[in-house]
Amino acid sequence: MIIDKLYKYVEERGPVCVGLDTSIDYIPQDFIKKHKDEYSALFDFNRRIIDATEDIASCYKVQIAYYEVLGICGLEVYKKTLEYLRQKGLIAICDIKRSDISSTAKMYAKAHFEGDFEGDFITLNPYMGLDSIDEYLGYVKDKEKGIFILLKTSNRGSRDIQMMRLNDGKRVYEHVGDLFYKVAKEYKGEYGYSSIGFVVGCTDIQEIVNIRERYKDSFFLIPGYGAQGGTKEDVRKLMNGKNGGVVNSSRAVLLAYKKYDDAFDASARKEVLNMREEILNGI
Amino acid sequence: MIIDKLYKYVEERGPVCVGLDTSIDYIPQDFIKKHKDEYSALFDFNRRIIDATEDIASCYKVQIAYYEVLGICGLEVYKKTLEYLRQKGLIAICDIKRSDISSTAKMYAKAHFEGDFEGDFITLNPYMGLDSIDEYLGYVKDKEKGIFILLKTSNRGSRDIQMMRLNDGKRVYEHVGDLFYKVAKEYKGEYGYSSIGFVVGCTDIQEIVNIRERYKDSFFLIPGYGAQGGTKEDVRKLMNGKNGGVVNSSRAVLLAYKKYDDAFDASARKEVLNMREEILNGI
Repeated sequence: MIIDKLYKYVEERGPVCVGLDTSIDYIPQDFIKKHKDEYSALFDFNRRIIDATEDIASCYKVQIAYYEVLGICGLEVYKKTLEYLRQKGLIAICDIKRSDISSTAKMYAKAHFEGDFEGDFITLNPYMGLDSIDEYLGYVKDKEKGIFILLKTSNRGSRDIQMMRLNDGKRVYEHVGDLFYKVAKEYKGEYGYSSIGFVVGCTDIQEIVNIRERYKDSFFLIPGYGAQGGTKEDVRKLMNGKNGGVVNSSRAVLLAYKKYDDAFDASARKEVLNMREEILNGI
Repeated sequence: MIIDKLYKYVEERGPVCVGLDTSIDYIPQDFIKKHKDEYSALFDFNRRIIDATEDIASCYKVQIAYYEVLGICGLEVYKKTLEYLRQKGLIAICDIKRSDISSTAKMYAKAHFEGDFEGDFITLNPYMGLDSIDEYLGYVKDKEKGIFILLKTSNRGSRDIQMMRLNDGKRVYEHVGDLFYKVAKEYKGEYGYSSIGFVVGCTDIQEIVNIRERYKDSFFLIPGYGAQGGTKEDVRKLMNGKNGGVVNSSRAVLLAYKKYDDAFDASARKEVLNMREEILNGI
């Protein structure tokens, strides 16, 4: 089960997930100039961030939108970044948030669990219901792959639908959670967590306590730390001790060189170390 | 407003939306053999389907998953197919069902409304709330682009979340619809429809009547006809007379050559003509 590998990496390396949402704007101009084009600079930037953090990050979340926006050439970099992570035995979470009917989901599963865009985990949007994830389950069971389902996201708009109350008293996100939690239980690894986890933003303290309580043995991918307002206390509650989740940081890591006035890769390392210390200190 | 162009195309050419969910398996073997590889066969297949149906189809829905599954080379075909539609002045609906926080949505908007993967409409998943569509609205207002938001999908799983009742008595999909309908009203074209429409499957007759009644001046992208069980009566109810929606058909058109025992493009044309007749006859 891929979740066991992630669990062990969290234990060895800490809970930080480095988000490679690498906008071309984030890359220092003089670094871009040393490359034949911005695409090779983009890959090389990612590569150096990975090299500088691999022993202190549990995993890497690669946000496909930042590569799609650059078209075919951008997706070549997305592919190469995933290949690089794979070669190093690191864990890639492909943040694709797909959702579709099963015949189409079959294509997405093959696209992102095999072939050019292969990663270890993908994110999925639950709005289309249980049958929209069926086609991914074979990969979870037999191919060392995993899923994170959007439960309660970190944005303000998460209140518009996810927080609404159903007539049985549950929030919509709780209903979603209960449905998929039942499926997730069938894909548990040796440490008690399932390879089907949830995306839970750390920006809503009241819900955080409820979510961790309600889905005790669920592993969380946690966005929203720092820039979006989530604090170390919020994150710790979600993490369930030391190993129940990974905490994503993208901009703060990629742009750390603006804060530390050092090389971007050395700065990224400092930022990840600081963040790890901040989160773990006192747990 | 792009919706006015679509409205006029529906009036001139009929309500059929040809779905280019082109699986390599759908392409006749002897046609593939005539090409240097399956990617060029795939593009040429799409091109011939488009040529054979452009005067009798309102638009083309290109499902990106069927191209992503083929990796970079598949996405080259996706790009070329969209380019071909654009050159011909035809309308492309990019079925991407994306959803994300606004900084990421900004990338998706640029990726699919400009650059390599430019289309006229895109589909979006509403689960992340109102702010998840903000970054697309500038394109709708000023750049002749449109959106279809998933409301009630055609799959069985649509019952799991979309059909649940909130404590105010509304279904979840009605709550979603009411929220986005309010935004959509600000982007109306000259025929009274908005460039922000909904995806509404025609597989649930009870909801169909309610949906059309509730969102009177909303334009619908309607999947689920034929293979998934939707009938001409269901579709007519959703269409609001002749022009309030487009009805997608993918497999039935792409695989029509198995039914008519004729060339695949001539067969596709027959199938679209039949479907158009079936839907419009009696309206």
